[in-house]
Amino acid sequence: MKTFRYNVVVHWGDTDPAKIVFYPNYFIWFDESTRLFWDSVGLDWDSLAKRYGVAGLPIVEAKAKFLSPSKFRDEIVVESQITEWNDKTFKISHAVLNRGQRAVEGYEVRVWAVPRPDEPGRLKAMPIPAEVKAAFE
Amino acid sequence: MKTFRYNVVVHWGDTDPAKIVFYPNYFIWFDESTRLFWDSVGLDWDSLAKRYGVAGLPIVEAKAKFLSPSKFRDEIVVESQITEWNDKTFKISHAVLNRGQRAVEGYEVRVWAVPRPDEPGRLKAMPIPAEVKAAFE
Amino acid sequence: MKTFRYNVVVHWGDTDPAKIVFYPNYFIWFDESTRLFWDSVGLDWDSLAKRYGVAGLPIVEAKAKFLSPSKFRDEIVVESQITEWNDKTFKISHAVLNRGQRAVEGYEVRVWAVPRPDEPGRLKAMPIPAEVKAAFE
Amino acid sequence: MKTFRYNVVVHWGDTDPAKIVFYPNYFIWFDESTRLFWDSVGLDWDSLAKRYGVAGLPIVEAKAKFLSPSKFRDEIVVESQITEWNDKTFKISHAVLNRGQRAVEGYEVRVWAVPRPDEPGRLKAMPIPAEVKAAFE
Repeated sequence: MKTFRYNVVVHWGDTDPAKIVFYPNYFIWFDESTRLFWDSVGLDWDSLAKRYGVAGLPIVEAKAKFLSPSKFRDEIVVESQITEWNDKTFKISHAVLNRGQRAVEGYEVRVWAVPRPDEPGRLKAMPIPAEVKAAFE
Repeated sequence: MKTFRYNVVVHWGDTDPAKIVFYPNYFIWFDESTRLFWDSVGLDWDSLAKRYGVAGLPIVEAKAKFLSPSKFRDEIVVESQITEWNDKTFKISHAVLNRGQRAVEGYEVRVWAVPRPDEPGRLKAMPIPAEVKAAFE
Repeated sequence: MKTFRYNVVVHWGDTDPAKIVFYPNYFIWFDESTRLFWDSVGLDWDSLAKRYGVAGLPIVEAKAKFLSPSKFRDEIVVESQITEWNDKTFKISHAVLNRGQRAVEGYEVRVWAVPRPDEPGRLKAMPIPAEVKAAFE
Repeated sequence: MKTFRYNVVVHWGDTDPAKIVFYPNYFIWFDESTRLFWDSVGLDWDSLAKRYGVAGLPIVEAKAKFLSPSKFRDEIVVESQITEWNDKTFKISHAVLNRGQRAVEGYEVRVWAVPRPDEPGRLKAMPIPAEVKAAFE
C-alpha cells in the first residue's frame, strides 16, 4: 500500500500557553493529509465529484493518541496510509513523526457517499469502486 | 444607530505561547458579531438570500488596532455598530472591551452583492435597499 | 456523577464548503467544555497550578464518532461527564446534541501531571487526589 | 529591501460555505509569513529572546483589503516586505498572489518590546537596533 508523507511546520498560532501544539490542530493536519494523499493519486475532490458524483469523503470517526508534544518551529511529518477498505467506508491511519519519533498516532474513518436524489442535502453511502481502491496500491 | 454586544469567553486554544489571544481570532469574533448583529434585526444570511438574492456579505476590507492583550479566561465584549452606509458597501465598527477598557478597535467593510447571472461563481455589487439600512436605526 | 452542558452556536467560519461543521472544531469544543466543566466545580486551570502544581490537564487520547452533520446557525449542546477515573488519568465523555439528537459522541483521556523538577519542560504523571475526584460527584 | 515569499496551499478547512477562504485565515498567513521571514534572516523568535530579551514581536495593528477570493486547492503566495522602520515599531506589508494576480493586500505593524522588570507580564517598547534593520537590506 502507498504511504503519503505530508510536511508540516508548527506555527506560533498552532501552539497554546503550554507552548505545545493545541491538539485539535492534529486533526486539521490529518484532514489535510488525507485530501493531499487522494490528490496525489489523481483522485482529488473535484474529480470524485465529476467521475463518481461523490461529495467529498465525509468523516465517520476520528481518533488520536498523543505520545509526545510538538513545539513552535518543529518540523513534523504526517505519514498517512489506507489501512482498511470496507465496502462503503475506509480507514486511513496517520502517524505524526517529530525528529524521527512517533509523536501522534491516529486514524480517520470516512465514507464513500453520493447525494440522495430524493432528499436534498442528505447523503447515501455507496460501495467503493475497485479502481479507487487500486489507485492506492 | 443600534449597537450590538457580543459576549466572548477567551478559551485556551484562542491563546498563544505568550498566553494572550492570537490576533487573527479577533477577526473571527468580528465576523461572528457582524453576522449575529444582522440576525438580531431579522436579516440573517438565509433571509438575505431569499429576499434579496444576496449571497452573504463578502468582506472588502478589515482592520484592527490592538491596544491591550486579552488572556485565557477573560470575558470580553465585542461592541458592533454600522458607522457608514455607502451605496453598495457599508462599514461596521467593532470595539473589544475587556473589564470595561477598550482592548481592540477595528472595522470591516462589506459589500451587498448578488451572483452575476452571466458568470457563475462571480458576484456583482448592488445598491443597498433603504429598508435594510433602516433596520439598524 | 455531574454532567456539564456547554452551549455552542455554529458560526460561518466553523463550517466548510459542504456547509457543515469542519470536524476538528468538535475537538475544540470538547476541549472548551472540559475546561469550563472543571471551572464550574472550582477547579480552574489557575487553581490547579496553585494548589497542586498541576500544569493543565494534558491530552493523552481523543476520539469522536460523527453521527449527523451540524450546519451554520445550529445551536448545539456539548454534554460532558467524567466516565472513568484511573490512578493518574481520567476519561471525559462528550456528546453533542443538535435539536435533541445525538450528533457526535466522543471522549478525551487526560493526565494529571506536574513538571519534573530534574528535567525542565517535561511532565510527570501523578495520582489524582481523592478530593479532586469527589468534586465531580 | 528583501522580499520574502511564503507558499500556502488553500485547504478545505480554510474555506467557508461560499467555497472561498474565510478571511481571518489571511491574517494567520500574514503572521506565519512574518515569522518565517525573520527566521530566514537569522532572527528567529528564540534568537530575539536570547540576544535582545525581546519577547516575540507583538502586533499593534493589522489591515487587509480583499481584492478577489481564493478557493479550495488554490496555491497562493504571500509576498512580505518591511516597508517602514520607525523607532520602536515597524510595518510589514503582505500581498497575496493567486495565479499571478494580487488577491489580498495588507500589512501588520509590530513593536520591538522587552518585559518590564518592575511589572511582570507587561512589556515596554524599545528602539529597534540598527543591525536588526540592516538584516533586511
